[in-house]
Amino acid sequence: MNKICIIGVGLIGGSVAKGLRKTNQVKHISGFGRAAASLKIAQKLGVIDDYSLDLKTAIKDAEMVIIATPVNSFSDILSLIKPHLDSQTIITDVGSTKVNIIKIARTVFGKMPINFVPSHPIAGKEKSGVEASDDGLFQGKRVILTPTAKTSSQAISKVSELWQILGAKVETMDAQQHDNLLAMTSHLPHILAFGLMDYLITNQQNACDYAAGGFKDFSRIASSDATMWRDICLNNETEIIKHIKGYQHTLDKIIGLIDDKNSTELAALFKSAKQNRDRWLGQKI
Amino acid sequence: MNKICIIGVGLIGGSVAKGLRKTNQVKHISGFGRAAASLKIAQKLGVIDDYSLDLKTAIKDAEMVIIATPVNSFSDILSLIKPHLDSQTIITDVGSTKVNIIKIARTVFGKMPINFVPSHPIAGKEKSGVEASDDGLFQGKRVILTPTAKTSSQAISKVSELWQILGAKVETMDAQQHDNLLAMTSHLPHILAFGLMDYLITNQQNACDYAAGGFKDFSRIASSDATMWRDICLNNETEIIKHIKGYQHTLDKIIGLIDDKNSTELAALFKSAKQNRDRWLGQKI
Repeated sequence: MNKICIIGVGLIGGSVAKGLRKTNQVKHISGFGRAAASLKIAQKLGVIDDYSLDLKTAIKDAEMVIIATPVNSFSDILSLIKPHLDSQTIITDVGSTKVNIIKIARTVFGKMPINFVPSHPIAGKEKSGVEASDDGLFQGKRVILTPTAKTSSQAISKVSELWQILGAKVETMDAQQHDNLLAMTSHLPHILAFGLMDYLITNQQNACDYAAGGFKDFSRIASSDATMWRDICLNNETEIIKHIKGYQHTLDKIIGLIDDKNSTELAALFKSAKQNRDRWLGQKI
Repeated sequence: MNKICIIGVGLIGGSVAKGLRKTNQVKHISGFGRAAASLKIAQKLGVIDDYSLDLKTAIKDAEMVIIATPVNSFSDILSLIKPHLDSQTIITDVGSTKVNIIKIARTVFGKMPINFVPSHPIAGKEKSGVEASDDGLFQGKRVILTPTAKTSSQAISKVSELWQILGAKVETMDAQQHDNLLAMTSHLPHILAFGLMDYLITNQQNACDYAAGGFKDFSRIASSDATMWRDICLNNETEIIKHIKGYQHTLDKIIGLIDDKNSTELAALFKSAKQNRDRWLGQKI
């Protein structure tokens, strides 16, 4: 590709840029954002070739636009880029929720643009900002594309290729299926960790003083960005609420087993959990 | 001290022995257990000086007996050692639950022996066995002693000194208070992690395939020993059920905030969770 434009050069946007630069697959990478200071840093670090605070300049002649800003800015960003797109420009994003992204695009464009391929790289760090970006962030990670029935197959191929260049395993699924799946594997654990901290603080302020190593790992994701997680909750509320309630039933089941002193079933549940976690970890490594 | 006897030379028992050996505070450390094979390994590794499968021999002339076997063996162990104790022998243990330990001791001895100082080092690994033992395991960690009103103050001092030699910060509290606190900071997180794995497997067998780094840390404690955690659940059931239910109310609160799209309160909850976790981590390091 000759040129791509990254909107929002933070951890994810910066990691895409760095990864592409490393493989020499793109001649020119330009950045757009609202804060000149952080774009300046991105340029200084060699993450982007140049930047502009004027969107028209930044996306001029770009074959692909990658939106890597928080979900709640999405409507504004799409409205801003709309007048400057040509019929060939491919758009993708990196948001953690997908049904709402498509809904917003439909509202802004009247219908879902055929060259817009929503995507979600399942990779991240608790740290944010371009300084934390990493050219290997997507290596071996999954990226889920959620095109609609009308999305151009050429655009899907291009976006798929982009992620493969970055080392990712690309998979396509329905946006609804994605949101359900991620609510389980990502959104629910984050809420459980935030919830545990809230429960402990509310119950006994100094309780954490008596916590050990297990708690440290368990609670790590409670150190994630609060605003981002608020937005994820508000953008995938149906699936998230469904899975919190489902999880509460699992807790009810465990309470029942403890209350009944059902030693056999309780050990079986813990053992199966352990086995599945160990198997997952084995595949992961 | 001239001699101590460690009953159950696994991760914790072995770490106590190694730590004491390093500081040269005990002349002789003997081990007792049911499996000759693992005691042989412990001796070979230099963790203990000798061992015996005959309890009388193992504890002969020991000034202190440290019980480091799983909680469910406790009644048998106390019954075994009872005939061989003299009036000076100090007993301590390392169990994760304390009210039930005292209850078992009262059943076996008729009343709580005045030289028995229940203790709980808040330290561990997911790994078990003497091979995983570590002379620095208790360094900087908390150890909670839960003596009763009648426990000998001399015995408390001796046991306190033992843990301090190993680098631990010793604190004394009521057994009931201990069990309540640990149900919150240790037992609850473990159950939440086991429960999440169970929920995911039950809901969608391959869901974990789409999990990322956060999930790995969150779920680490679900790789803990299933039998040990079953026993902890069954030995601290009242406190654990109380806190699972309390935690479910926190989840209800979060569901309510998401359902009401209460952006402000949701962000405030996540932010406060994050701040408290970050502050805790800061103190920890």
